[in-house]
Amino acid sequence: MKIRVINPNTTATMTAVIDECARAVAGAGTVVESVTSSMGPASIESHYDEALAAPGLLTEIARGEREGVDGYVIACFGDPGLYAARELARGPVIGIAEAAMHAASHLGRGFSVVTTLARTAGQAVDLAERYGLQRFCLGVHGTDIPVLELENPKVRGVIAEACREAIAADGSEAIVLGCAGMADLCAYLTQETGVPVIDGVAAATLTVQSLVTLGLRKSGRGEFAAPLPKHYTGLLSGFGIEEDNR
Amino acid sequence: MKIRVINPNTTATMTAVIDECARAVAGAGTVVESVTSSMGPASIESHYDEALAAPGLLTEIARGEREGVDGYVIACFGDPGLYAARELARGPVIGIAEAAMHAASHLGRGFSVVTTLARTAGQAVDLAERYGLQRFCLGVHGTDIPVLELENPKVRGVIAEACREAIAADGSEAIVLGCAGMADLCAYLTQETGVPVIDGVAAATLTVQSLVTLGLRKSGRGEFAAPLPKHYTGLLSGFGIEEDNR
Amino acid sequence: MKIRVINPNTTATMTAVIDECARAVAGAGTVVESVTSSMGPASIESHYDEALAAPGLLTEIARGEREGVDGYVIACFGDPGLYAARELARGPVIGIAEAAMHAASHLGRGFSVVTTLARTAGQAVDLAERYGLQRFCLGVHGTDIPVLELENPKVRGVIAEACREAIAADGSEAIVLGCAGMADLCAYLTQETGVPVIDGVAAATLTVQSLVTLGLRKSGRGEFAAPLPKHYTGLLSGFGIEEDNR
Amino acid sequence: MKIRVINPNTTATMTAVIDECARAVAGAGTVVESVTSSMGPASIESHYDEALAAPGLLTEIARGEREGVDGYVIACFGDPGLYAARELARGPVIGIAEAAMHAASHLGRGFSVVTTLARTAGQAVDLAERYGLQRFCLGVHGTDIPVLELENPKVRGVIAEACREAIAADGSEAIVLGCAGMADLCAYLTQETGVPVIDGVAAATLTVQSLVTLGLRKSGRGEFAAPLPKHYTGLLSGFGIEEDNR
Amino acid sequence: MKIRVINPNTTATMTAVIDECARAVAGAGTVVESVTSSMGPASIESHYDEALAAPGLLTEIARGEREGVDGYVIACFGDPGLYAARELARGPVIGIAEAAMHAASHLGRGFSVVTTLARTAGQAVDLAERYGLQRFCLGVHGTDIPVLELENPKVRGVIAEACREAIAADGSEAIVLGCAGMADLCAYLTQETGVPVIDGVAAATLTVQSLVTLGLRKSGRGEFAAPLPKHYTGLLSGFGIEEDNR
Amino acid sequence: MKIRVINPNTTATMTAVIDECARAVAGAGTVVESVTSSMGPASIESHYDEALAAPGLLTEIARGEREGVDGYVIACFGDPGLYAARELARGPVIGIAEAAMHAASHLGRGFSVVTTLARTAGQAVDLAERYGLQRFCLGVHGTDIPVLELENPKVRGVIAEACREAIAADGSEAIVLGCAGMADLCAYLTQETGVPVIDGVAAATLTVQSLVTLGLRKSGRGEFAAPLPKHYTGLLSGFGIEEDNR
Repeated sequence: MKIRVINPNTTATMTAVIDECARAVAGAGTVVESVTSSMGPASIESHYDEALAAPGLLTEIARGEREGVDGYVIACFGDPGLYAARELARGPVIGIAEAAMHAASHLGRGFSVVTTLARTAGQAVDLAERYGLQRFCLGVHGTDIPVLELENPKVRGVIAEACREAIAADGSEAIVLGCAGMADLCAYLTQETGVPVIDGVAAATLTVQSLVTLGLRKSGRGEFAAPLPKHYTGLLSGFGIEEDNR
Repeated sequence: MKIRVINPNTTATMTAVIDECARAVAGAGTVVESVTSSMGPASIESHYDEALAAPGLLTEIARGEREGVDGYVIACFGDPGLYAARELARGPVIGIAEAAMHAASHLGRGFSVVTTLARTAGQAVDLAERYGLQRFCLGVHGTDIPVLELENPKVRGVIAEACREAIAADGSEAIVLGCAGMADLCAYLTQETGVPVIDGVAAATLTVQSLVTLGLRKSGRGEFAAPLPKHYTGLLSGFGIEEDNR
Repeated sequence: MKIRVINPNTTATMTAVIDECARAVAGAGTVVESVTSSMGPASIESHYDEALAAPGLLTEIARGEREGVDGYVIACFGDPGLYAARELARGPVIGIAEAAMHAASHLGRGFSVVTTLARTAGQAVDLAERYGLQRFCLGVHGTDIPVLELENPKVRGVIAEACREAIAADGSEAIVLGCAGMADLCAYLTQETGVPVIDGVAAATLTVQSLVTLGLRKSGRGEFAAPLPKHYTGLLSGFGIEEDNR
Repeated sequence: MKIRVINPNTTATMTAVIDECARAVAGAGTVVESVTSSMGPASIESHYDEALAAPGLLTEIARGEREGVDGYVIACFGDPGLYAARELARGPVIGIAEAAMHAASHLGRGFSVVTTLARTAGQAVDLAERYGLQRFCLGVHGTDIPVLELENPKVRGVIAEACREAIAADGSEAIVLGCAGMADLCAYLTQETGVPVIDGVAAATLTVQSLVTLGLRKSGRGEFAAPLPKHYTGLLSGFGIEEDNR
Repeated sequence: MKIRVINPNTTATMTAVIDECARAVAGAGTVVESVTSSMGPASIESHYDEALAAPGLLTEIARGEREGVDGYVIACFGDPGLYAARELARGPVIGIAEAAMHAASHLGRGFSVVTTLARTAGQAVDLAERYGLQRFCLGVHGTDIPVLELENPKVRGVIAEACREAIAADGSEAIVLGCAGMADLCAYLTQETGVPVIDGVAAATLTVQSLVTLGLRKSGRGEFAAPLPKHYTGLLSGFGIEEDNR
Repeated sequence: MKIRVINPNTTATMTAVIDECARAVAGAGTVVESVTSSMGPASIESHYDEALAAPGLLTEIARGEREGVDGYVIACFGDPGLYAARELARGPVIGIAEAAMHAASHLGRGFSVVTTLARTAGQAVDLAERYGLQRFCLGVHGTDIPVLELENPKVRGVIAEACREAIAADGSEAIVLGCAGMADLCAYLTQETGVPVIDGVAAATLTVQSLVTLGLRKSGRGEFAAPLPKHYTGLLSGFGIEEDNR
């Protein structure tokens, strides 16, 4: 089984962190390959960044389909381009917010999300609603640590404190980490908080692995059927599914 | 007051229809300018198409900001890139699904949406939910007429019949047209159905005009604040808000 | 186009404030006429007051229909009698809470309402739910300033402070003014708070103007069809739609 | 204990039916008095009718308060003026839709409402939502029998058939009768349908009796506190709570 | 009319308190009999306790059916086994949380629940949702007083203080007591708080009495039809509805 | 890793089917042990059956805890006793409805459940709501095939037909099998319907395996903390967590 973990921002050092966390949990027969998007912003911290990251993500999905990949992880907590990617892929595509929130809902009455910039908190709330899990999502807490500062070891303590405050404020029973760049803090924060702490990169890798093992692909009927070929213009021509190649 | 109506697909004949409908309702002091996206798919009929249309849309918003535009209409019923555009613009940005659904909610207990491909019906339902208007949205009905076939006069009767069936099936009291390319059918369908029929292009133009008249811009506080400058890589470098230009 | 703005309480000085705010935004071809209800309570601050204000409001709608009015604004934030008025009128009827909340939902993730007596806060919450906009309505804040005290210039500062507190407490990105009597504070409060502040009187005037421009009337099908003629008894006979006049 | 059942329309023959059904279930120590509103429409079949029935209803509540009534039933399925009446009264005030829907929710997974004019179906749906019981309300079915035709024995069979169709269409397990004028059909329809059939007049009488027995009054804190005295103008002066009488 | 009040825990002193509160409100012709479960835990403070209390509860329902009981109250605030009991009984079965929350919803905009262990607060929230009354349930407040400590007179003051804090924190207008063992505190707490305080034991007794008076039984159609006979194994054989006895 | 799959009914032949399906998907290092409840009904087809199956289920959880089991599957589609079991266990406990519905939500816009007796359809709807997945659950379809008839090969065709009808009626994109006894039909039904078909036994086994691999246990904080020791009476004494053993 071949799972591709796509970092939809263009920062390769973050891909390295993601890759390690994904590989750590994959089963014996599972090959995990992590890739960095080749175009778009260096970090994703707004709707705008998400929109400009999507073409790079979809390029990786298209490449994966040509290479026989069985399933995909979108390793950014906004799950950018998830539905577009699901149309394009034959196998399952899972976002890390999706996987982390689902996992957390099995463990307790409710979870808090601790994330990077406060301005993205609303997006996490919207994702919880999209997945039906808003009843479990008791709060989303921005730390205003930029995504690319997460590699700085000094921020660990700040995040731990934010987790403790979130648990107290929300009465929550678990923590969902709100950025792929936090994946390697999972064990540390579990120890600091005493509640289950969920990293979406690892969770999504196992969700994809499970779905592939179950023989389940995205449904080809209805909303997520393969996109129709189109005539493309300008810069993005050559990236879409061209009519000429029908 | 200068309102820019952006057709986010790359089909200029559709922009002409849109432009006529927008100009027909604009007030005395309002200048309406309609533009066609310069890159992306010729029509937008999936999440995938929306994702690949967004960079072209955002390019037009960026240009509009440089040119002192007061507000924008996104003239595609999926309202693609709306939140990203709202971050980028200083004035109001309104999608045509957003405007049409809001208008319909003032007129009766509930409306039906009649749209193009059935596969996009779920997106219309999701938009109604995003805007809070799902309690008014009693049904979404695909006709499976492709967007670019709407210019064919033969489809008018098919759409009229779909509207009548939708009213009967949903018990609805108004019709929302589910594609910018249907804008010029509004009067004909009103006559055929006997209920209010709402074209989002005209509705969105007046929503933007009203907001600008009221002195209201998108809020600069919180989720829709201007996106942060970033380092960009690859094809899309030069399109985003570059760090170097801070 | 003739728009009638109805103040459903019987205080003419408040109608003067309302009239000025409505006229200030109306388009070139729009005639705005503001009227004061001829019967009922001097201010509306409870369900009970709303119930006793409704007959006076409906009398004005009936008069407007005889005089060829194109659309109506109900200039009280409880939107009293809105659905009854919608049945009676042929054109659109919009409440100021309805218009203000809709406008606010286009500008940011969420708004706070700042209103008069705290006892009416629940009614504002219920209106947000009725219009589907409760997801945008992050809080309703009573100042316990009676409606008829709003003309006192000393309360401006109290309201500004309440707005600032509401923004901080709710994390909101816009303010909706919760009383027609606050209409003239809009510019002042915008300056004081730094976020968009929405006055429903102006917003509703433009919503009606837009709907009339679009050729949209309330739907005559279903719930808002014209009321049936009836036999009336007692004091209110002569006010309803009498069977004898069928 | 003195319970007043108010028929808010002005048709005394309907009050007689209501009175009999209320008395039939009242406990040993309970005095039931039914009254007919002295002003307003002969039947209530729209939002407009409800608005014009409210002053007559409130007049009866005010009289009841002077006469030491312990609790009130509003005997019209739209529960017109309920919240205004609740402000005015010291004891409990219950609408018949409210009581019937609550009772039905104790008996099965879901109920259907069978009512008079189809145009009022939306109001029943809104009431179910207001009371929180929409999850139990599986459908509302208009028969288009006018309220004042219910006394005609020929309509019994039509209503029975509508009940059977509603049960089949909705998969419901109980029937709520959607008009005070149907109160005397309860036993007949129970026999015809084989499911519990709930008449709101009897149900509301016992709900009021129970609340009074429990020593429970409407809460005087917050939204339903007594309305404030006001200056009244015109026809309705003398009906409200006048400032002069403070 | 014979109403059986079942204490589903095995503590007879609590049954005595319950019995007194139920008898105090029952009507002239109503015989109230309170029973203590003969098997299971001494108090119910978790999902686990509820699960182990259910067989004892169902045994009492089965006995009641043989003895011609007309309706049942489940006198534990978690309403354990309610749906199973409703299947087994012919008449109505009402839980005390169910009855108390319904009653509170008639009296004001919202109520607070004051209960025993904080760990059970989520269950109360879930019950409010099940009954549709979450819009009225503004907060659930644990005191961390164990159920069996409620007989201690010293805790009265602690509970009164918790009620006052709940009213202030939630802006609520009534209190629902979150344990059958608090039934006798109702008058005291009403006096201490100044808002309506609802004891579910008394409320449920009158709800059952009302439903029986109305001739209403649980619906025999659909979800709550009598359970099917089954083959039983092990310890519980002899308790279920055995196939052999069909 | 040791996963225990508990069949909460007492029919060992069904456990054999379950065991095979669970083992078929488990990873290399995972030991799956399936057990049959030793007390309670032979099949679970009502709330009543669920209540009487819970003690047997909890006995198996208690035994598993003594034997060092890492996680549990409750292999009955009503997920009986899930929350009680979650309190008792240290590791994750997953119901098969829970797992199947979660998996289906990753694959398409919505799924249909095809189940056994129609009377249990409401329970499936309630579970979807509990897990937050009602937006994905487009319909629940009873076949009125009793649980213990599922072993009969003749019913396969009936179930396939019900699946096809459900897809057409609901517009769904996947099928969730509504009984553990259908687990071995998954491949056959996938072929017959052309959409993903999800068996909860396999899905739950992998959900537990994934959570254990991630190091995630149920949260010990709040609602699912270990139940408190109690004094037990009667038949069930010896089954609960006795005070004496504290």
